[in-house]
Amino acid sequence: MFVLVNLKAYPCDPVAIAEAAADVAETTPATIAVAPQPADIGRVADTGATTYAQHVSPTEHGSHTGSVLAESVADNGAVGTLLNHSEHRRRLADIDGSVAAAERAGLDTVVCANNPAQVAAAAALGPDAVAVEPPALIGTGTPVSQADPDIVSDAVAAAEAVDPSVDVYCGAGITTGEDVVSAGDLGASGVLLASGVAKADDPRAALADLVAPL
Amino acid sequence: MFVLVNLKAYPCDPVAIAEAAADVAETTPATIAVAPQPADIGRVADTGATTYAQHVSPTEHGSHTGSVLAESVADNGAVGTLLNHSEHRRRLADIDGSVAAAERAGLDTVVCANNPAQVAAAAALGPDAVAVEPPALIGTGTPVSQADPDIVSDAVAAAEAVDPSVDVYCGAGITTGEDVVSAGDLGASGVLLASGVAKADDPRAALADLVAPL
Amino acid sequence: MFVLVNLKAYPCDPVAIAEAAADVAETTPATIAVAPQPADIGRVADTGATTYAQHVSPTEHGSHTGSVLAESVADNGAVGTLLNHSEHRRRLADIDGSVAAAERAGLDTVVCANNPAQVAAAAALGPDAVAVEPPALIGTGTPVSQADPDIVSDAVAAAEAVDPSVDVYCGAGITTGEDVVSAGDLGASGVLLASGVAKADDPRAALADLVAPL
Amino acid sequence: MFVLVNLKAYPCDPVAIAEAAADVAETTPATIAVAPQPADIGRVADTGATTYAQHVSPTEHGSHTGSVLAESVADNGAVGTLLNHSEHRRRLADIDGSVAAAERAGLDTVVCANNPAQVAAAAALGPDAVAVEPPALIGTGTPVSQADPDIVSDAVAAAEAVDPSVDVYCGAGITTGEDVVSAGDLGASGVLLASGVAKADDPRAALADLVAPL
Repeated sequence: MFVLVNLKAYPCDPVAIAEAAADVAETTPATIAVAPQPADIGRVADTGATTYAQHVSPTEHGSHTGSVLAESVADNGAVGTLLNHSEHRRRLADIDGSVAAAERAGLDTVVCANNPAQVAAAAALGPDAVAVEPPALIGTGTPVSQADPDIVSDAVAAAEAVDPSVDVYCGAGITTGEDVVSAGDLGASGVLLASGVAKADDPRAALADLVAPL
Repeated sequence: MFVLVNLKAYPCDPVAIAEAAADVAETTPATIAVAPQPADIGRVADTGATTYAQHVSPTEHGSHTGSVLAESVADNGAVGTLLNHSEHRRRLADIDGSVAAAERAGLDTVVCANNPAQVAAAAALGPDAVAVEPPALIGTGTPVSQADPDIVSDAVAAAEAVDPSVDVYCGAGITTGEDVVSAGDLGASGVLLASGVAKADDPRAALADLVAPL
Repeated sequence: MFVLVNLKAYPCDPVAIAEAAADVAETTPATIAVAPQPADIGRVADTGATTYAQHVSPTEHGSHTGSVLAESVADNGAVGTLLNHSEHRRRLADIDGSVAAAERAGLDTVVCANNPAQVAAAAALGPDAVAVEPPALIGTGTPVSQADPDIVSDAVAAAEAVDPSVDVYCGAGITTGEDVVSAGDLGASGVLLASGVAKADDPRAALADLVAPL
Repeated sequence: MFVLVNLKAYPCDPVAIAEAAADVAETTPATIAVAPQPADIGRVADTGATTYAQHVSPTEHGSHTGSVLAESVADNGAVGTLLNHSEHRRRLADIDGSVAAAERAGLDTVVCANNPAQVAAAAALGPDAVAVEPPALIGTGTPVSQADPDIVSDAVAAAEAVDPSVDVYCGAGITTGEDVVSAGDLGASGVLLASGVAKADDPRAALADLVAPL
C-alpha cells in the first residue's frame, strides 16, 4: 500500500511531518510519501522521507521562467510527483508532457482525475499510477467506504481496461486506517490524504493510526 | 468520409465558403462540415451547410460570462463541435466537461490530440470522434502519406483499443483529394483541413477536388 | 448613463430581451446595451439593440481556432465588448491585446476589475471604460448604495488619476432604478447588470424600471 | 543598481552561480540577486546570495496543491520574487493577488510587462518594481541601447505617472556592463538578465564584467 500525504499550502511544519513519516515508514510494509511545497522539497527529502512534488511542468531545460522543472525537483531529492490534482487541473497535452518530463528525470507519476472516464484517459498517458478523487468526498471527511464506493471500483476497472500496469490510488475520503483498508478492498493500491495528517495535532500518531491495520 | 473545413480566424468569407460546401456536399457521399467563428455560426448554418463550432465550454446554463454555451451554439444551427484543437488546448477535466455539454445539446464531438497516447486519452472520454494532429504536419502542406503516416495508423489502433466506437480523423497534412484517400487508407474515417480551402482563391474548386476521388 | 445587460449563459430568450432593450432605449436618454452569447450576436444586433460581446480574443486574423475574433463579432453587428469579467479573468498581456483587437475592429471596450488598484491597472491599458465589480456585491442582490459604496468612488478616483478619459461603470449591486441613480451619484457613468433583467419574469418591465429615474 | 540573474530552467549549477553572485556582490555597490528554480531556493539562499523566486502564487495558506506559496519561498530564504515574466504571463487579478501574497510574506516584488501601457498597469498594482521586457530584445543579444531605447524611457515615464515610488528595471537586451550603464542612462534602476550569466562558461567573470562600470 502506498500512502501519500499532500501538504498542499497548509500552515504546517513540513520537516516535522517528514520526520514522522520517515519514522513511521520503518514500522510498516506500506510506503509513506510526503508532498510538500516545491521550495521545501530539499529539506523534506533530507529527513529520509519518500518525497514527492505536488506538480512538475511539461517543459525541458530552457527558457521557462516560473516552471517547476522535473530535473530540479529530482536533484533536490524528490522521487515522484503528483500531476493534475483537482486543485491544479492541467491541459491534456501538458499532463502528457509532464508525465514525459517526470519519466525523463526518474520521477514516479500519479495523475489525478475525478471520475472513471478521466481515470481511463489519465491511464492512457502511461503514468505509474492514477488517483481517483471523487468530488463528493474531497475535503468532507466522509469515508470512501460509506459514500460512493463504486467510483473507486469503477476507476480500478476503467484503468485496468486501458493499461493493467497502471496502479490506482484513492484520492479522497481517507482519514483513518479503516479507510485505507476499505480503499484496498475496493481495488486501490494506494491512498492520497492531506488535512488528516497535515492538520493533525499529532501528525506522527495520525500516520501511525493510518498504517496500523496494514 | 467526413471532411471538416476549419475556418479558424482566417480573413475569409464564411458564408461564401459555407455555400460552396453545401453545394459540393450534394455531389459526394462524403459529409462536408464548416467550422466558422462562433458569431458566424448562425449565418453559416443558414446556408444549409453542416456547421460545427470550433469549441464549446464545459459549462451549463448559468453565470458564465465569456463562455461558448453548447446550447446557444446548437440553437443557432451547429450540429457538432471541435474540442481541444492544437491551437486551443484544454484541461483534461474541461474536455470531459465539454464532451458532456455537447452531448447534452445534441452536438457531435471531435476531440483533437497530437499523438497516439493523447488520442487514446481523448477516446476514453467518449466523444464521437478523435482527430490526430501530427505536430510535424500542422500547417506544413506536407501530405500525411509522405511524412509520418504511422502516427495516423497508430492513432487508429490506440483509439480502437480504448473504444472501438470512436471514429478517428486525420487532422493535419491534408490538401488534396489524394491526401484524403491516403488518410482513409491509414484507417481514418474523416479529415480536418483549414487553409487549403479557407485561403484558396476558389474554395468551391478546392472542395470539389478534395472529394473528387471519394 | 450606460446600462449593459449581460446575458451570460443564462437560459433566456436573447432576442426577446434585445427587442425589449431596443424599445425601452427609445424612451430614455440612457444607452441600453445587451451582451449575449457569441453565437447570438447576429440575431441580437438584428433587433436594433446596441450589442456587446462578452469577450473578444487578443488575436488577429490567422490560425486561432477557438478564438472569438473581434472582426467577426463586429461583422455580426456588435459595437462593443466586455473584457476580463470576474467570470472570465484574463492575463494582463491578453487584456492589453484584446483592447487593441477591439479598437482595430471598431468595438468599444469595458474592462472589468474588482478593486480600485485593478481598476487603475485596467484604465492604464486605454479602454473606453472600466467596470468595478465589488466581490462582496456580485450576485448578492445587495444594492451598491448600502454595501461598500466607497469601492465605487475609490474606483472612480483611481481611474481618474491614471486616465481621466476612461469612463467608470459599476459592475455589481444593481437591481433597481434607484441603484442606477446611486451608482451615478458615486461617480459612475454606467452600470452592468445581469440576472435582474435576464432572469426577470418581464424583462421589458425590469428595463423600464431601471431607467425610469434617469 | 539592482541586477537580477534569472536562472529560468537552464541546465546550470544554481549553487555555483549563487556563490559567484554572493562574492561579486561584495565588490560592487550594486545588489546582485539570483532567481533559481523553486526547489533550489533553499540551497541558493544558503550561499548568502540575495535570492528571488521566479513566481509566487496569489494564494494564502490552504488547499492549493501545486501552488508556490509566498510564505514557503520566504521560509527557505528568498527575499523577493519576479511576477508575470513574459514566459509566465498571469491574469491581472492574479498578479494583484501575488503582489499581496508576496507583501504578506515580506518579499519584494518585480512585475514584468512588455510595453509602457502594461508597465503602467503593473505599477498601479503597487509592486516594488516593474520590469519592461521589450519583445524585440528578449533573447536576441541585441543591446537595449541600440534597439528600441525609447521603450525603456517610455516605461520609466509611464510608471512614474502612475506611482513614482515604483522602480523600473530593464528586462531584456542586457549582456554587458555597458548595457547596464545604458539602462541606467535611460532611467532604469535595475536590470534583469538570464543566459548572459547562466549560460556563460565563467559566470563569475560574466557577473564581474556586468557590474564593473558601476
